[in-house]
Order: sequence, then C-alpha cells, then structure tokens
Amino acid sequence: MAPEIERLVNLLAKLPGLGPRSARRAVLALIRRRETLLSPLARAINDASNAVRICSVCGNIDGRDPCTICVDHRRDNTLICVVEDVSDLWALERTHAFRGRYHVLGGILSALDGVGPEDLCIPKLIKRAGDLEVSEVILALSATVDGQTTAYYLADKLANIGISVSGLAHGIPVGGELDYLDEGTLSAALKARRGLESKGG
Amino acid sequence: MAPEIERLVNLLAKLPGLGPRSARRAVLALIRRRETLLSPLARAINDASNAVRICSVCGNIDGRDPCTICVDHRRDNTLICVVEDVSDLWALERTHAFRGRYHVLGGILSALDGVGPEDLCIPKLIKRAGDLEVSEVILALSATVDGQTTAYYLADKLANIGISVSGLAHGIPVGGELDYLDEGTLSAALKARRGLESKGG
Repeated sequence: MAPEIERLVNLLAKLPGLGPRSARRAVLALIRRRETLLSPLARAINDASNAVRICSVCGNIDGRDPCTICVDHRRDNTLICVVEDVSDLWALERTHAFRGRYHVLGGILSALDGVGPEDLCIPKLIKRAGDLEVSEVILALSATVDGQTTAYYLADKLANIGISVSGLAHGIPVGGELDYLDEGTLSAALKARRGLESKGG
Repeated sequence: MAPEIERLVNLLAKLPGLGPRSARRAVLALIRRRETLLSPLARAINDASNAVRICSVCGNIDGRDPCTICVDHRRDNTLICVVEDVSDLWALERTHAFRGRYHVLGGILSALDGVGPEDLCIPKLIKRAGDLEVSEVILALSATVDGQTTAYYLADKLANIGISVSGLAHGIPVGGELDYLDEGTLSAALKARRGLESKGG
C-alpha cells in the first residue's frame, strides 16, 4: 500500500464508528470517485477547518461566534435547554420543536471516568440561568445513571438561585412496540400515564 | 448546523459504512480534535489525491504507475494472482504469503448486476497470462456464486491458451468452530481432508 494511502487509512480509522477495515473501504471509494467525492471532501474539510468556531455563549459548534442560535432574535430568551453534547443539540434542532436557547455541557458527571462539575460548563450555565430573562431550564440529558446524576446535581444548583427546572418526559418511544421495551421504560410510561380525550362528545 | 459542517457531514455520509448519524459523530470528533485529526486528515487527503495512480499493468492503486509490486524484481514473474478488487489485493499482501504478481479484475461477472466479461479487465489478463514467463494463474475470488462463475469463465479462457489455473482451497477457517460453520463449508472441508503426519516415529 502506498504510504499516502496508508496514512489516509490510519487517520480515517481514528474516526468514531470506523475501524481499519471500513477505513480501507472508505479510502478505496474515495480514490475511485476522485472527482465526485475525494476533491469535494478535501475542500469541505478545509472550509470546515477554517470556518468552524465554538460558540462562547452556549458551546454550540457553528460558523460564527456567538452562534446562529444565540444571535437569533426570534428565539425565546426565557428558555435554556441543557444538553450533554453538540450532537444532542443537533438532534433537538432536527425536531423543530424547541425555539429557546441551548447550553452545551461538554459531557456529563461520571464518577467512573473521573468527570467532576469543574470539567463541565456548569458555572457558565448558572451564570446564564441567573440572568433576569431566564424563567426555565430544561435538562435534556440521557436517561442513564450518569445523565440523571448530572440532572439532579444541576436541578439542585439551579433551584438554589430560584430557577424553574424541568426534564424530558420518560415513556414509550413513538412507534415503539411494548414487547420490545425494557421494564424500566414500561413502568415509567405507566406511572406517567395520561387521560385520553374522547373524540366523540 | 453551519453550512460548512453540513456539507462535510453530507460528503462523509456517502462513504461506505457511514450513514448520516455516524457522519455527524465523525465530524464532531474531527472538529474537537482539530490539530491532531482534522488538519492531518486534510493534508492526507490532498497528498493521496495528488499521489495516487492506478497501475496500468495490474490495476493496483499505488503512488506510482507501474505499481511497487509490478516493478519489484524480487517477486515471482511466473505467478499471477487474480483478485476482484484492490481491497482483496491488500488483504493478500497482509498475509505476506504470496510473492508473485497480481491482476485486479475490477469486479466479478454478475448476471444480476449486468456485469459481463467486457466490463472487467479480462482481455488484459489473457494477454499478460500469454506472456512466456507466466506458468500459473491463481484465481483468488470469493466463494460466492458470482465469484465461482467468474472463476470458471476465466479457467476456461486460460486453459485455452495452455496456462495452469488454480483456485484458493475451501475449508474450515483457522480458529473456526465447527458448530458455527455452514454445511457447505463443512462438506467442502470434509471432501478436501488431508492425511495427518504422525509426529511420533
């Protein structure tokens, strides 16, 4: 294998979700589609490398700082949605269901991995939440032990400064079949059951 | 999502083995590791794009044409190993078990996908095999229906010009457990059974 190809394979293999085998396949696909894939990818990586900034307000990754969401005047200043990572922010944005601001923690508290409050963007969140305009902080964290530990820690901190705190609802995923769901989800969905409105008068 | 990031995600999602979700994760990893991953990858893609050639003799992908294997005087000119694709050539090279030349077909015959002999590098192979020095052609093709059809087609063509043709042995993969193997492999391994040399006198 030519050294240039080997270097490219080794770098691609470091990406999450790719190993040596899939990196080799990806490189072959790139070389075969030089005009339609390799050259555009080279340009896109250069563009992204030059353009990308981390928002100093919320931690989002964007082409500008402050990011497009932080400077958008149509968005609700009274709501902050706290997420673990930028990928979660992207996931929420794809729903088009949230029109407030975000705050990216950059991780979650984890005793096992030695991640403490000082490793996350928590002081900045407390400062932002203390802002007069903010009325509610939504903790959109994973329903894992570490995610919920982080949520309780933040809820405690935020309650101290008189901010209303909420978390995402637990329940059955839309389209989910009962038979395939774990007991924890089912019992959470059962506890949080809601009355159904009858359509016929 | 910034347009530069979105373009990069869309291009990476076109690579085999990556979808939109893993492309987003890959882009986040790239942006977070700008110095150690993003910049080196940009350079590696440019280098590969400039350096890579397709060998006009065997179809290998390399930094030179003819490729390193074709110009290596220590390799055996009397043996040609026929592979479907460059990834198979790389796989065989990793074994260090073959010291002859290669010939990359660029695909296999497939009635379903409409791939005929004229779509593959078959005439070039016949011409190379007709060379005085070549004594044996090894068909290292997949043990699939299409792979074996291609092998029979090539064996027929090559027998016509008096070249000895061989194929890879079928049998139990090294480290494979009988219980997990399919009936086809097991019966092939049984048919091709070999006498064991007794170690004691």
